[in-house]
Amino acid sequence: MGCPRRLLLVSNSTMHGGGYLGHCQQHIQSFLGEKVKRVLFVPYALHDRDAYARTAREKFASLGYELDSIHESCDPVEAVRKSEAIFIGGGNTFRLLKALYDNRLIQEIRKRVLEDGIPYMGSSAGTNVATVSINTTNDMPIVYPPSLQALGLVPFNINPHYLDPDVKSTHMGGLREGAMLLVEGNKATLQGVTGARLFLSCCAVTDYSTEFDCPFTKATF
Amino acid sequence: MGCPRRLLLVSNSTMHGGGYLGHCQQHIQSFLGEKVKRVLFVPYALHDRDAYARTAREKFASLGYELDSIHESCDPVEAVRKSEAIFIGGGNTFRLLKALYDNRLIQEIRKRVLEDGIPYMGSSAGTNVATVSINTTNDMPIVYPPSLQALGLVPFNINPHYLDPDVKSTHMGGLREGAMLLVEGNKATLQGVTGARLFLSCCAVTDYSTEFDCPFTKATF
Ligand SMILES: [Ca+2]
Ligand SMILES: [Ca+2]
Repeated sequence: MGCPRRLLLVSNSTMHGGGYLGHCQQHIQSFLGEKVKRVLFVPYALHDRDAYARTAREKFASLGYELDSIHESCDPVEAVRKSEAIFIGGGNTFRLLKALYDNRLIQEIRKRVLEDGIPYMGSSAGTNVATVSINTTNDMPIVYPPSLQALGLVPFNINPHYLDPDVKSTHMGGLREGAMLLVEGNKATLQGVTGARLFLSCCAVTDYSTEFDCPFTKATF
Repeated sequence: MGCPRRLLLVSNSTMHGGGYLGHCQQHIQSFLGEKVKRVLFVPYALHDRDAYARTAREKFASLGYELDSIHESCDPVEAVRKSEAIFIGGGNTFRLLKALYDNRLIQEIRKRVLEDGIPYMGSSAGTNVATVSINTTNDMPIVYPPSLQALGLVPFNINPHYLDPDVKSTHMGGLREGAMLLVEGNKATLQGVTGARLFLSCCAVTDYSTEFDCPFTKATF
């Protein structure tokens, strides 16, 4: 392992009336910093990849970053290999995960994030696939991925758009709308404007309305 | 093909304050009639199969039917082979479908319903698995079935607990809470206390608030 992992896992792409990624734009800038110039965007979770890439490119341009969409590359694996930072956008989690498998990107993204330490940002479905598996998604299974195992960039699952108090798992966290999780090495920090409910293997079940630190040591990868 | 298929596909197992299957008990009696004495119950969609079978047995006893739960049989395939009628209860659709595959019941249930014409009743997840696939379920993928293809007892998909107007498919119907679909041969009749939204390949997209007939002729099985 070279650099420690760095992830910004956002619950949802828009907050009522706020525009695409508006509620987390300062977090994005502080997360990516000034060293990153270009972000590799993964639009697989939505059907219209061109339109999605335009929306994302416009937003990231306004924040001072160039954006390349992986669907415009003739060699997606090579695009990941050369990337400075990765952003996987929201949409349908099943469609997204299947496309990651179909394009053979799972191992390469894992390597870039866990070994090379490039920043990974996910929103909604992009947050879901960063976890152990997509078993906690609320999305419809509109396609059949070869597995529910996901990128495994963190050693727990997250339920973006968390609403349902019935869902219980010792290795699952629920991120409420507007919440985000900043992961740096083995430290996870909850951020954002709304309360979040977090129940990780390392912590008791608790409601958090402000920032806090939650070290996780049970990483199995 | 011997007898025409007969299915009663119920959207949900309980209506607010009505008790288990209370809102559809008259439909069940009229559907099963007096010839059926014993119903084979499939409790796979819930974790606690014993408790689920007790609940279902009690309800069916009150309606005049004996109930055998398939999980109490040492040979589930043989239980289906000998069954007079099948009722698959609600719960998690992924857990249910995986157990149907694990117990190798897909083909035998299809044969009994489509060739021998025994009555099939489904509620919620049990309605979902009666259709072409579970691609339209709202449930969480808590387990990974070997396929999303389901029993295919009708040539379309159904979204039980239908709420979401965004979901569009030419081969999908949405059954609102309290609604049920009675299928007899190639005729489908919408029943129940609430409106339903139905958009089948044979019909235009329409809201229905009363009963109506919808013949489907595109059955591909
Ligand atoms: Ca997950
Ligand atoms: Ca279905």
